[in-house]
Amino acid sequence: MVYRSCQPTIKEKRMENYVHSIPTQVYFGKGQISKLAESLNRFGKRVLLTYGGGSVKKIGLYDEVIKILKEGEFFVVECDGIEPNPRIESVIKGVKLCKENNIDVILSVGGGSTLDCSKAIASGVYYEGDDLWEMVKSGWELKKSLPLVDILTLSATGSEFDGGGVISNMATNEKLGAMYTYPSVSICDPTYTFTVSKYQTAAGSADIMSHIMEGYFSRTDDCDMSDGLAETVLKTVIKNLPVALEKPDDYAARANLMMASSVACSGIPEYGKLGTGWPCHGLEHELSAYYDITHGVGLAILTPRWMRHILKKDPSVTARFVKFAKNVWGLSEGSDEELAQKGIDALENFFKKAGIPYTLTELNINDENFGKMAEHANQLGRLTKAYVPLTDEDIVSIYKACL
Amino acid sequence: MVYRSCQPTIKEKRMENYVHSIPTQVYFGKGQISKLAESLNRFGKRVLLTYGGGSVKKIGLYDEVIKILKEGEFFVVECDGIEPNPRIESVIKGVKLCKENNIDVILSVGGGSTLDCSKAIASGVYYEGDDLWEMVKSGWELKKSLPLVDILTLSATGSEFDGGGVISNMATNEKLGAMYTYPSVSICDPTYTFTVSKYQTAAGSADIMSHIMEGYFSRTDDCDMSDGLAETVLKTVIKNLPVALEKPDDYAARANLMMASSVACSGIPEYGKLGTGWPCHGLEHELSAYYDITHGVGLAILTPRWMRHILKKDPSVTARFVKFAKNVWGLSEGSDEELAQKGIDALENFFKKAGIPYTLTELNINDENFGKMAEHANQLGRLTKAYVPLTDEDIVSIYKACL
Repeated sequence: MVYRSCQPTIKEKRMENYVHSIPTQVYFGKGQISKLAESLNRFGKRVLLTYGGGSVKKIGLYDEVIKILKEGEFFVVECDGIEPNPRIESVIKGVKLCKENNIDVILSVGGGSTLDCSKAIASGVYYEGDDLWEMVKSGWELKKSLPLVDILTLSATGSEFDGGGVISNMATNEKLGAMYTYPSVSICDPTYTFTVSKYQTAAGSADIMSHIMEGYFSRTDDCDMSDGLAETVLKTVIKNLPVALEKPDDYAARANLMMASSVACSGIPEYGKLGTGWPCHGLEHELSAYYDITHGVGLAILTPRWMRHILKKDPSVTARFVKFAKNVWGLSEGSDEELAQKGIDALENFFKKAGIPYTLTELNINDENFGKMAEHANQLGRLTKAYVPLTDEDIVSIYKACL
Repeated sequence: MVYRSCQPTIKEKRMENYVHSIPTQVYFGKGQISKLAESLNRFGKRVLLTYGGGSVKKIGLYDEVIKILKEGEFFVVECDGIEPNPRIESVIKGVKLCKENNIDVILSVGGGSTLDCSKAIASGVYYEGDDLWEMVKSGWELKKSLPLVDILTLSATGSEFDGGGVISNMATNEKLGAMYTYPSVSICDPTYTFTVSKYQTAAGSADIMSHIMEGYFSRTDDCDMSDGLAETVLKTVIKNLPVALEKPDDYAARANLMMASSVACSGIPEYGKLGTGWPCHGLEHELSAYYDITHGVGLAILTPRWMRHILKKDPSVTARFVKFAKNVWGLSEGSDEELAQKGIDALENFFKKAGIPYTLTELNINDENFGKMAEHANQLGRLTKAYVPLTDEDIVSIYKACL
């Protein structure tokens, strides 16, 4: 998760310095669960096993994990029921279990929500304050965490190759991202995603694409490597999502989506680029905080509207949209203005064709809270400094275009 | 450095499992030398400083490093004079210095040769046998090394983001790759490459491109992510090398080449792909071992000839060459056979235009040793199992086409 501040008033468009530091070891491919016991053994024998609801049990993965843990003579405490858009209450519960049971390592089995929650638990164990919601709110400078091993079951958030996590507090209508800890080991077996529903597969792919687009639309123009990598991830999803929807057990399609997921949110496709504020994520987190909707769906609805809004507001960004239309969607016909629009249309049609809802109205969301949401998004201090700066009015206008 | 064995007789072209594990922290950009003292301090105060010849002193980097080491109160032992195509004698010397001085960490300042030699020294300190050449020969399973920090001054080998190294023994005419250790920290400041000569800049870029092409021409066809990433690296070099040759202090060009260098040899562009045997590297190492030529120059001369040879020998690989012509060189006109040839021509012309010698004859190499070299390349056991398997006769034929 990358939320770098940015200074769009700077006219300099040259490459920025960066630090690459991703300590996560990824075991990628069918059957890599065979590396689970040795991965955990590096850290100890006392395991907190975190997971969500039924899907991990339905596909038999839970039983497989329990068998390995028993054979390896691990002491296991379970922390289940972790929500999509994971809640602070689950973090509190997990931290308590870790402290009571003197846990050595967390094993997270699931998608991005379970993983994000597990990261916050891992850091929460060493948090010195009493209020873990305060940790979430100030969580960008945490220094110590329990080690974390995960088994991924959804290609979406990139949490398996990233140090960030997003936690929600429904009491205060807040959904906040922070940096916690990188997983030490991520076991990424695409076969675990064969049974993911069409809806969640499409939403996950929208999330992957959003992670790329949030950084791709930046003021820095001379990062050929990072831009090319970003375009590669987008093209990989564009090619493979329709295959996975058509044939859910297509290994190559599922594997390419899983690789794309890991790279997209790693920060690597943004190396050298000026921060952009990740505006669509800022807007979406408000939606999820108020309405608990699926993150990727919110992003898919918001992104084309955000694009049209900023292109109209600041035509100086047209060139970047032309690059997007040409290099990602293979478009070439028309003036720059036409190409820029065509690229956005292509993205919107892609999401529609994948079966993702196209309006907030379909999700039973009306304009009741848009003012408060816009204000809160901007209170977090990112969007007035975004790629194209957004006022509260801009944000309300984008939300309204989604109705 | 990636030399995976492969089984070209297998008809299966589907994605392979892989492990991602690159612990190196990269500080990328101008002025990142400010992170040097803290990077070394993690490991201790007793430093072996390795470097090559005059260039590090000429650009003032040596003085800057010494100043930082003095201010940080490090104890420093110098190991200079490390050769291009670094020799086993330098490894022996470095290991001796480490043992005599109870060194905590190696600081390598230079290009791939200095770094490769430093990696072998780092592992050599813990090698239990008496003969370090035996370590090089059997060096794929080493478990323990001294920590290594480097400051990169040449975009070429990717040693800054890779665990491998290549060491030469001129007495036995052998140049052998092995896995030693990943750098803990790589400081990659593109400004240190501003003064690299046109010849070495071009040769380095040929090396970067070769690292990609060696893996790109593989039997696995469904790795969209890795193939796209490989194409991105190639296109980045194709765009930025001419700029760097024209304007040696163009920051963006030098920076893109440096990023490309790190990614190219990291293994990442090959994730999921069946091993290919890295045939051009196998052939080039013989050339360097016999004639001590610049590695990248040897690769640039060999690669187009290798391509033409295997395309003629096994037309089933045409489709991959068509993909190369289209996605890397932007070609589209002609039959598949024509496109395949045009892609190879484009590569050859690119190397020629960059001023790289085009024949071995220009390097005063004749066919005297081709038979022995081919036999030795195949004794190493990789080329008869390469992407398109090569017999001794095939190899001699490729060498002869380079005259």
